[in-house]
Amino acid sequence: MPMNPNAQIEITAFRWVPEFAQGLVRDLRARWALEEAGLDYWARLLGQERPPEYLKEQPFDQVPILNDGEVRLFESGAIIQYIAEKSEALLPRETAEKYRAIGWTYAALNSVEPALMNVVLIDVFYAGEEWAKLRREGARDFAKLKLKRISDWLGDKEWLEGDRFTIGDLMMVTTLRFLRHTDLVAQLPNLDAFVKRGEARPAFQRALQDQLATFREHEPEGVAA
Amino acid sequence: MPMNPNAQIEITAFRWVPEFAQGLVRDLRARWALEEAGLDYWARLLGQERPPEYLKEQPFDQVPILNDGEVRLFESGAIIQYIAEKSEALLPRETAEKYRAIGWTYAALNSVEPALMNVVLIDVFYAGEEWAKLRREGARDFAKLKLKRISDWLGDKEWLEGDRFTIGDLMMVTTLRFLRHTDLVAQLPNLDAFVKRGEARPAFQRALQDQLATFREHEPEGVAA
Repeated sequence: MPMNPNAQIEITAFRWVPEFAQGLVRDLRARWALEEAGLDYWARLLGQERPPEYLKEQPFDQVPILNDGEVRLFESGAIIQYIAEKSEALLPRETAEKYRAIGWTYAALNSVEPALMNVVLIDVFYAGEEWAKLRREGARDFAKLKLKRISDWLGDKEWLEGDRFTIGDLMMVTTLRFLRHTDLVAQLPNLDAFVKRGEARPAFQRALQDQLATFREHEPEGVAA
Repeated sequence: MPMNPNAQIEITAFRWVPEFAQGLVRDLRARWALEEAGLDYWARLLGQERPPEYLKEQPFDQVPILNDGEVRLFESGAIIQYIAEKSEALLPRETAEKYRAIGWTYAALNSVEPALMNVVLIDVFYAGEEWAKLRREGARDFAKLKLKRISDWLGDKEWLEGDRFTIGDLMMVTTLRFLRHTDLVAQLPNLDAFVKRGEARPAFQRALQDQLATFREHEPEGVAA
């Protein structure tokens, strides 16, 4: 498994997050891509309070970043695209097919994720607030429309562009997982099966287990049952 | 100017949109990139009701798409990256610098735009709704935090990565323009100047004028004063 303290590639990840976020933090995308590509990496762990200098590495104070020699990257979309350029496992080399895959990473992050994150914010972070109660149904309807669009596109294809798994699928699967506290994806059987196919990949499983193992190791006292 | 009915590159755009959206529709990003790259293109115009077949070209029923021979793309982020690969004007060729620029396109679309679009939705689309009134201040505060992060990063640099304009700047400028109905960007002088530097580029001006000229040409009767 590619976690290796002597690896040249470094990503950042959180030492610990509350349970609702475990398995969802975005370093999972980088880990998954690195596992698919078979590239060794190491995770530099950060607490919920980052040192002010971290803003020079990540202007929005988020994880992950990726360092690889003189390459210093932030944004999970750019990171997985960079990893994919190093390995044909994740990105076709022909221009037309390559940009279809890249297009789906942007689609997941811009046409889908904001609608899904609004549901997460309303259900998890602002659940007690009046505006959240009033907006909940509308936000869910908008998320459902997005899911329907992806489901209609997908049809009975294995992956978004056919039978070849790419970074577009990786990004979409990790994005759809943000709704795991709901049954909205399960209502669309082909989309649900798509997410499960992604999660069943050995590289995903290794990435997930490595993220979760870190959280178990750093669990604050009094949190576990 | 690169609009040319015989061009191989085709994008889609709207025939007409209401005034609040004029100059903001995302084909502007594609037009601007094509103008910077000096590539001829043609705009296929769509109404607010798209034919059902359009979903096969754009699964989320949005504009723009880009067709260039066998390349069929959607998502403005992927489109400007594809254009930039054809022209050094928009994207450095060295891997480290190239991925910094690509990183900023994802940052604009995922770390910034959702926070800004929530302000637009609340102020424009849902202004009369109770949840929008209750959420308005919180949404503005979150958008302000994002703007502060970009402003802090930018400092006194000309562009996000120094003195070279890239697709990262193009994407960030067009994203920040979504807040033009507010003074939130103007409150941060260096960020305001960054947007104005982008808008002052001749390629931006040509792109904007071409988008607006189409709307003037197709303005429904009774809309103009």
